[in-house]
Amino acid sequence: MISIAVLGYGTVGSGVVEVINTNHRHINRRAGEEIEIKYVLDLRDFPGDPVESILVHDYNIILNDEDVKVIVEVMGGVEPANTFVRQALMRGKSVCTSNKELVAKYGAELLAIAKEHNVNFLFEASVGGGIPIIRPINQSLTVDHIDEISGILNGTTNYILTKMADEGLSFDTVLKEAQEKGYAERNPEADVCGYDACRKIAILSSLVYGKQVDYEDIYTEGITEITKRDFEYSNLLGTSIKLLGTAKKIDDKVYAIVAPFMIDENHCLIGVNGVYNGIFLHGDMLDNVMFYGRGAGKLPTASAVVSDVVDAVKHRHTNIMTIWKPEKKELGDIRHFRCGFFVRVKGRNIESAITDAFGKVKFVELGDNEEETAFLTETMEEGVFHEKIQAFDLITRIRTTF
Amino acid sequence: MISIAVLGYGTVGSGVVEVINTNHRHINRRAGEEIEIKYVLDLRDFPGDPVESILVHDYNIILNDEDVKVIVEVMGGVEPANTFVRQALMRGKSVCTSNKELVAKYGAELLAIAKEHNVNFLFEASVGGGIPIIRPINQSLTVDHIDEISGILNGTTNYILTKMADEGLSFDTVLKEAQEKGYAERNPEADVCGYDACRKIAILSSLVYGKQVDYEDIYTEGITEITKRDFEYSNLLGTSIKLLGTAKKIDDKVYAIVAPFMIDENHCLIGVNGVYNGIFLHGDMLDNVMFYGRGAGKLPTASAVVSDVVDAVKHRHTNIMTIWKPEKKELGDIRHFRCGFFVRVKGRNIESAITDAFGKVKFVELGDNEEETAFLTETMEEGVFHEKIQAFDLITRIRTTF
Repeated sequence: MISIAVLGYGTVGSGVVEVINTNHRHINRRAGEEIEIKYVLDLRDFPGDPVESILVHDYNIILNDEDVKVIVEVMGGVEPANTFVRQALMRGKSVCTSNKELVAKYGAELLAIAKEHNVNFLFEASVGGGIPIIRPINQSLTVDHIDEISGILNGTTNYILTKMADEGLSFDTVLKEAQEKGYAERNPEADVCGYDACRKIAILSSLVYGKQVDYEDIYTEGITEITKRDFEYSNLLGTSIKLLGTAKKIDDKVYAIVAPFMIDENHCLIGVNGVYNGIFLHGDMLDNVMFYGRGAGKLPTASAVVSDVVDAVKHRHTNIMTIWKPEKKELGDIRHFRCGFFVRVKGRNIESAITDAFGKVKFVELGDNEEETAFLTETMEEGVFHEKIQAFDLITRIRTTF
Repeated sequence: MISIAVLGYGTVGSGVVEVINTNHRHINRRAGEEIEIKYVLDLRDFPGDPVESILVHDYNIILNDEDVKVIVEVMGGVEPANTFVRQALMRGKSVCTSNKELVAKYGAELLAIAKEHNVNFLFEASVGGGIPIIRPINQSLTVDHIDEISGILNGTTNYILTKMADEGLSFDTVLKEAQEKGYAERNPEADVCGYDACRKIAILSSLVYGKQVDYEDIYTEGITEITKRDFEYSNLLGTSIKLLGTAKKIDDKVYAIVAPFMIDENHCLIGVNGVYNGIFLHGDMLDNVMFYGRGAGKLPTASAVVSDVVDAVKHRHTNIMTIWKPEKKELGDIRHFRCGFFVRVKGRNIESAITDAFGKVKFVELGDNEEETAFLTETMEEGVFHEKIQAFDLITRIRTTF
């Protein structure tokens, strides 16, 4: 029998308890040992809840209990999670977490501490909710040089964008509805401004490239500026607009960016709609690989956390090799990132000026006499685009993957 | 330094050599040790080929070499692969294979022998080519009760069906073209009759349900009967026809089938086109998860084989737990499998007879005065469908997932 403790009895924490209780026999069989939740730590009380009898408010009770071999950290936020996790690892307890802020900031350090103490720091649920992605990157995609990892990493924004595309609604209308349905938080900034996706692509690219990618270094744009009219063009073109987190190797430099991209029907992620997430990688041998599933939600996320618990139990005396060094990975200057652009500028009958500036472009007409001209450029450097666009009265520009 | 041997220098075997040589440093870093190909076994000679100096014709040289710790079996076919693999495992050598016939037939036994000798029998490349699927099932999807695994598991047939759908061509025309391009074998039976997909879903369902699913027990239909006209209906309906391998739990019984299915735009696998493969699972906690990538091809398959080599090197003295018992999994009688049907019967103005027999159906009209009536049924048992259809002059029926 292995005792575990769950830190935080919020959505994911209660999901972890539910998953372990519901699929107890199955999980024990897979782990090769019986798993028992000995403690749940939360500042709150939960009178009448089944966890009442195992609820503690003092972390030291857990830390000092030699029986507890695995700790599930699902409190979220950097502190006190960071302190708690360090203490646990140093006491020889493995830690499984869904906490993307913690992993993005201290992943490399915590992995090193885990290695030093011959235990494991696992974080499958920190990216892509229930989608197995961290373990496949670490243990399956070990052969290829990965030159791109791109993902739809945030379910809230993908829900909003899908709804805008399908129903021709404005961002504000859909956001309000998403908030009412509980798909978006009352303060939606972390999602709609891309901060959540930014932490997730920081984690993924750190794992793929083996060094610390600081999320502060990743150029990040949200979806708040995307309009109904952008989707009218996108639908006309048979494309879709998705918030992508991307880390791409171009000429030996890694460029990382979070921004809305227009993707076409040939893109692996074109079918990833609603609250689903999808993560796409390109390797030199494997070519394209894609992973798809529920990127959030109580039970899918909890399932991923518990899969880490199973792994931690199976690897009680072995550190699972994870290559993510604390050395900083210097990212390429975003001005040299290369992509195409969908552009809307004010004015009509300016096609020749546009062609003079951008070379070969594809003009797009909604045919409604609006005083604007829209076009798709070929692939070019960000910096070059920004220079060239100065001569025009820009309404909006969305990067493209095609 | 770890020495390995490659059995078979065909497409995958030469791919394995190429992958290891090309990404040598990267692979060694991931494995934590230097990997050296000490022998390649093949009956043929390859004068002038880089492997000439390490080519052997006698397996005993490899078997008796204590230095060889990992054997890559990529010969294909049940014998002599089976004998060679057994001998290797019993000598304490791990084996990595892409051989689906071998794994489908003897997977459980070979896993047991590997466990007994504290080595590993790994077969990531036997299903889905480069797509990580075996390891995720074993190590990530450990928490959920999986009630369905369905896949587009054969690239050749998916290429043919995609081409038929997109270009309105007949099966024979596309098959001929696929053979010319090297996408289909001169004897295409294993692919187009579904035998290849059958072995793959046997492997996947054995792993998911933990017991031996014999491929001989799986009801298997190929794609040879699918016509241009079926695709005209399918396109009109906004659906697609795909060869699926499916293992589904209904009322505690597992039903396994390989057959063409009509799938609609909400199906996870709708976007899996051309030579790509996709594998979809549904779990009680995770909901839907999907894995996508190149299901065949020299380098993607070789990449998956080498990822197993890396894993075997990392787990030199530990058997990786894999739950696949040799006990036979009894499958549900296919007559009780439940699905909808797309049906074409001869005759017109027979709607009321059809409705009398099948209850609520959806009629589909191509509008070309052909002497036939087409319709979609609701979900029903196979056996019930077959009884009811007796009263009609059946042209074709394709199962549906919706």
